[in-house]
Amino acid sequence: MTRIAVDCMGGDYAPEEIVKGCLLAYKELGIETLLVGDEEKIRDILKREGFREELSIVNTTEVIQMDEPPSNVLRKKNSSLYVAAKLVREGLADGLVSAGNTGAVLTVGKFVIGSLEELERPAIGAALPNPKGKTVLIDVGANVDCKPKHLLHFALIGHTYAEEILGIKNPRVGILSIGEEEGKGNELVKETYPLLKMSKLNFKGNAEGRDIYAGTFDVIVCDGFVGNVILKASESLGFAVIQMIKEEVQKSFLAKLGALLMKPALNNFKKKADFTEYGGIPLLGAKKPVIITHGRANAKAIKNAIRVANEFLTHHFNEKLLENLRNLLPQGVKV
Amino acid sequence: MTRIAVDCMGGDYAPEEIVKGCLLAYKELGIETLLVGDEEKIRDILKREGFREELSIVNTTEVIQMDEPPSNVLRKKNSSLYVAAKLVREGLADGLVSAGNTGAVLTVGKFVIGSLEELERPAIGAALPNPKGKTVLIDVGANVDCKPKHLLHFALIGHTYAEEILGIKNPRVGILSIGEEEGKGNELVKETYPLLKMSKLNFKGNAEGRDIYAGTFDVIVCDGFVGNVILKASESLGFAVIQMIKEEVQKSFLAKLGALLMKPALNNFKKKADFTEYGGIPLLGAKKPVIITHGRANAKAIKNAIRVANEFLTHHFNEKLLENLRNLLPQGVKV
Repeated sequence: MTRIAVDCMGGDYAPEEIVKGCLLAYKELGIETLLVGDEEKIRDILKREGFREELSIVNTTEVIQMDEPPSNVLRKKNSSLYVAAKLVREGLADGLVSAGNTGAVLTVGKFVIGSLEELERPAIGAALPNPKGKTVLIDVGANVDCKPKHLLHFALIGHTYAEEILGIKNPRVGILSIGEEEGKGNELVKETYPLLKMSKLNFKGNAEGRDIYAGTFDVIVCDGFVGNVILKASESLGFAVIQMIKEEVQKSFLAKLGALLMKPALNNFKKKADFTEYGGIPLLGAKKPVIITHGRANAKAIKNAIRVANEFLTHHFNEKLLENLRNLLPQGVKV
Repeated sequence: MTRIAVDCMGGDYAPEEIVKGCLLAYKELGIETLLVGDEEKIRDILKREGFREELSIVNTTEVIQMDEPPSNVLRKKNSSLYVAAKLVREGLADGLVSAGNTGAVLTVGKFVIGSLEELERPAIGAALPNPKGKTVLIDVGANVDCKPKHLLHFALIGHTYAEEILGIKNPRVGILSIGEEEGKGNELVKETYPLLKMSKLNFKGNAEGRDIYAGTFDVIVCDGFVGNVILKASESLGFAVIQMIKEEVQKSFLAKLGALLMKPALNNFKKKADFTEYGGIPLLGAKKPVIITHGRANAKAIKNAIRVANEFLTHHFNEKLLENLRNLLPQGVKV
């Protein structure tokens, strides 16, 4: 039986929604969690929710704030996040879920849990929605300045994520650039392209920004700086569009009525696009699953993150990743 | 009287919509254009539209295709685009508008018309919509690998564009990064930050991806690789969202009715977000205005692009830019 350590004090709605998420994961999916945080508060919530069975709690006294410098986490050794990561490193838990300070989660993922020795750097993969399914954008923030070797590894990690977790067979891999043709791009892209071409991945060449949400690629590789700004820009564009449409709708009675009639359809769409359905974004290549959820994660988002962390274990993600590292990289080339 | 050279053969709807756009610019705005392209075809369209007055046409025999390598334009010296740019260089026209191959327009902008001597590189500035107005993202594709000096110049160019063309007083300038705090970002950002801080621009520090569509900054600086993928990703996200909502709406009669009632409001929103309203994106820092419109530009988009090219002249954009270059850059620092 696996057990996921959950940082109960991280996130905008912690500990309330986080603890409820752990309960949901247990009740609906039968997944056990280790609740790390302020024991008294956690017990109160569990009691209020009428949960009588024993859930393991590990008491901690410190909290990493959402706006704290991520590096603080390595000094605050009694914070819920640090302790949760340490439990994973020591084998007392099999994976980590946190809705806390993204940078801090990354830091413990990299330096407390650590990455697979065969990989120099773990990467964050975001499964973004498109009309036909999902596209993995990798890396979206773990590595700002990258070398060609790293992008090659990200491609391989993204391939494994798409195939093993998202169920996409023989995923089409692209490298993000500013034109379709080989030879277009910045120095990093131009140097990485031949490595990807030589690999045994299903490499389809350069992807453009417009491919990210079009479903033309299953995995798109970029450095973490580019991926991060795209991810955040997309979110902000979504908000801006909704805001601007709302303002127009408010100006007319018929439009307001129309919006009301469309609501169920819009809710279905929102469900498809909603981060709470995804269960967060994984730090891929860490020794154990690390799932970073949105700071605004509610109980459902936490439950889904726990489910995903568990899937990484039951699908033997790391074993497949290592196998792919041995078999799919360019042979006889020093990268 | 100014006169704008228009590449009548570039774009998905050339020459028909391009020629009509020139007519609209003349009829509605009184702006004269020099129509460059296949004379016979252009005359046919002018005749069909019932336009009897003399509009200047320059006959050319070659066309740069939308999917042609941009560098071809420097060899195809009788193409409509090359000739239009040459007319500008020789002072026979005062600006250039093209809906053609973006890379090719950039190439003639840089190498035929040329950039201001005081600037090493021109940059493309995109005025993106937000609920409160516009944010200039610069560069969105003219320069893939950049040095801190270039980003500093882009900031200054963007400042001048926001102030002189968009009418934003004392624009808030930011540098695109992956965290708000000083010190966050890749090497390029970290090296550019102090230069911006020392300048006399209204520098507000790091902007994140989420600031692009939020209206929290008026000018956001990035290298052309990052800007280009963001611009194209945004467009593709817009399409994907509309597509996914449409699919949900189709499933229900009430939702279809709702969509019908909302249509006028949605059209108002679309107008705000529509590229045809903007009149294309300018290559800023060229010796004369160069406006690149979307390949799908219709007559209205072309008319607006001609209007914008003219505004650069009547607002004395380049003179202001040179003045700002002298006055707002960090003093006594070699960049």
